[in-house]
Amino acid sequence: MGLVELPESHPLVRPGGTASAPLVRALRGDRPDRVPVWFMRQAGRSLPEYRRARDGVPMLDACLDPDLAAELTLQPVRRHGVDAAVLFSDIVIPLRLAGVDVDIVPGRGPVLARPVRTMADVRALPELPTDAFAPVARAAALAVAELGDVPLIGFAGAPFTLAAYLVEGGPSKDHLAARTLMLAEPETWRALVTRMADYSAAFLRAQVLAGASAVQLFDSWAGSLAPEVYRSRVRDASARALAGVADLVDPAGRGVPRIHFGLVCPGLLADLRDAGADAVGVDHRTPLDRAIELLGPDVPVQGNLDPAWLGAPEAPRLAATDRILAAGRKAAGHVFNLGHGVPPQTDPDVLTALVAHVHDWEAER
Amino acid sequence: MGLVELPESHPLVRPGGTASAPLVRALRGDRPDRVPVWFMRQAGRSLPEYRRARDGVPMLDACLDPDLAAELTLQPVRRHGVDAAVLFSDIVIPLRLAGVDVDIVPGRGPVLARPVRTMADVRALPELPTDAFAPVARAAALAVAELGDVPLIGFAGAPFTLAAYLVEGGPSKDHLAARTLMLAEPETWRALVTRMADYSAAFLRAQVLAGASAVQLFDSWAGSLAPEVYRSRVRDASARALAGVADLVDPAGRGVPRIHFGLVCPGLLADLRDAGADAVGVDHRTPLDRAIELLGPDVPVQGNLDPAWLGAPEAPRLAATDRILAAGRKAAGHVFNLGHGVPPQTDPDVLTALVAHVHDWEAER
Repeated sequence: MGLVELPESHPLVRPGGTASAPLVRALRGDRPDRVPVWFMRQAGRSLPEYRRARDGVPMLDACLDPDLAAELTLQPVRRHGVDAAVLFSDIVIPLRLAGVDVDIVPGRGPVLARPVRTMADVRALPELPTDAFAPVARAAALAVAELGDVPLIGFAGAPFTLAAYLVEGGPSKDHLAARTLMLAEPETWRALVTRMADYSAAFLRAQVLAGASAVQLFDSWAGSLAPEVYRSRVRDASARALAGVADLVDPAGRGVPRIHFGLVCPGLLADLRDAGADAVGVDHRTPLDRAIELLGPDVPVQGNLDPAWLGAPEAPRLAATDRILAAGRKAAGHVFNLGHGVPPQTDPDVLTALVAHVHDWEAER
Repeated sequence: MGLVELPESHPLVRPGGTASAPLVRALRGDRPDRVPVWFMRQAGRSLPEYRRARDGVPMLDACLDPDLAAELTLQPVRRHGVDAAVLFSDIVIPLRLAGVDVDIVPGRGPVLARPVRTMADVRALPELPTDAFAPVARAAALAVAELGDVPLIGFAGAPFTLAAYLVEGGPSKDHLAARTLMLAEPETWRALVTRMADYSAAFLRAQVLAGASAVQLFDSWAGSLAPEVYRSRVRDASARALAGVADLVDPAGRGVPRIHFGLVCPGLLADLRDAGADAVGVDHRTPLDRAIELLGPDVPVQGNLDPAWLGAPEAPRLAATDRILAAGRKAAGHVFNLGHGVPPQTDPDVLTALVAHVHDWEAER
């Protein structure tokens, strides 16, 4: 693989950028002075300033408005002091930018005008136009310009999760149509997830080139698959998506850290790693010490406070946090996060206090 | 525990009843001549005769109409030749019969008029009136009268799944309100799941006394819990529900077989067993041979063809079936089933052919 050097202006490269930020160091297997922390879905409805800024703007329009997307990306950094921003966007943005008729229906999720179920449907999926990601790159660049030494995380949906929306035509409880397609028509399925991988790879690449210092691939639904089905039908495509940024390096040859998060049973955590991730995001159902055992001591981990704790009293919430922080010391690196996204009804002050607690922890040990 | 002998007229007791039926034998750890098979949600929308009979009748009304419920219970036995009927009912029936304002909203699921979130709410939950289950018992008795030596399976929802509906007020994606309650207010939670266990225990008991030859406790949502949370907050309540029929025995002192099914990660299968089940229902995500390793060779298992195979071509579907049948030979007993309920869009002929294939398998080895 030919390597592509990131430009001197990239935050991972330029002096005073993000290379020594706690998030980047932890994801590269180092132990910064404090445990870095960010929250999945931190740019979202839990923040009153988010609700005001988004007011009346449909989700995908907000993602494609560079000024608004950058503002929403920055809000949680300003408010909570988290160690990373994550680009305000949506996993179906590459589909929309390719010209697929998809929209986000409030309270329901992504809905496709036409499900994709045959090889002809897959072949008819449009190519991404050159410069398709211009509004995404602009939003990322605007955010990066304000973030200074705080890293921006780029993200994309994993091919299975994306493909499941296409096959079902929208959200579904058990992804049965997608799971049937992968068993019934493996070639059509492979063509579909390969195409999804290419969409997601291009999405990640655009975000990194615009200044993201790390990426995360989200596979929200991988947990509905038996392990052997994940391995034979899905993992290669996720690896292809993650490989989309593998050639991008700093002058020292260091790559852009890639986090692979899935809601999965413990038995699939090592597969998330084996898809070519630098770090594994652990959901709340696998205790972090167990996850580290399964992944081995060389793999940085991210996670994994159960979001259910956010609505509980502070003392037991912080005790649960401390157990996770203690467990995280056994990994090569640890980024504190929730085990899933921030629930919309979360009190933002709880998150702010949680960030402070995580930051104070190492010093207080 | 004092034992209560089932009456002479009970199918498990009377000559020519169900004690030697393949299902009952397999659940008791025996190897009948053929592998018994039934399907979760076999009485349902996949059958045209079901859609005709249910036409216009709301779900819970259908459950509480003894003639209709018995008819719907019998339909899949007549059509597919399955080795068991499962009573047509719903896990919220005990709530409805206790007087809780709950309804099934088509396309959505159970919806409560008032969520249950405080200790006062829990204390206000009504007691089950004496003879509350009369319409359920009548439906079961009508079905049993026609079933002859084919066992009727009684069923109930596990306390966590039931409690989650009460706390959320309806279906939810991640059961966050319920999971927060169990962390934030363990005493309120314990009171709630204990009450749910008592409802479900009474529901199971009514079905057995009316002629059911086995029972199954369903915990559809247990998979959303971390193992230690399941063990500390949920398992005892499930054990209490299963214990509700533990004292019912035949004259030889043999109990009524109890199946415990949950959609769970492999790490929780042994907990399903340890809650006092005689057999464990395995979902499609844990390969059956792995489940048997985890449970040990003394535990009968049920499962676990992925429902996604029902929409796939026959040859690979039957190959997957054969792999499960072969794996099942390593368990103390094996009941073939799907790994989850029958999808409504299933072609019923596929199920009929699958039953015949399972029945022919042992002979053809």
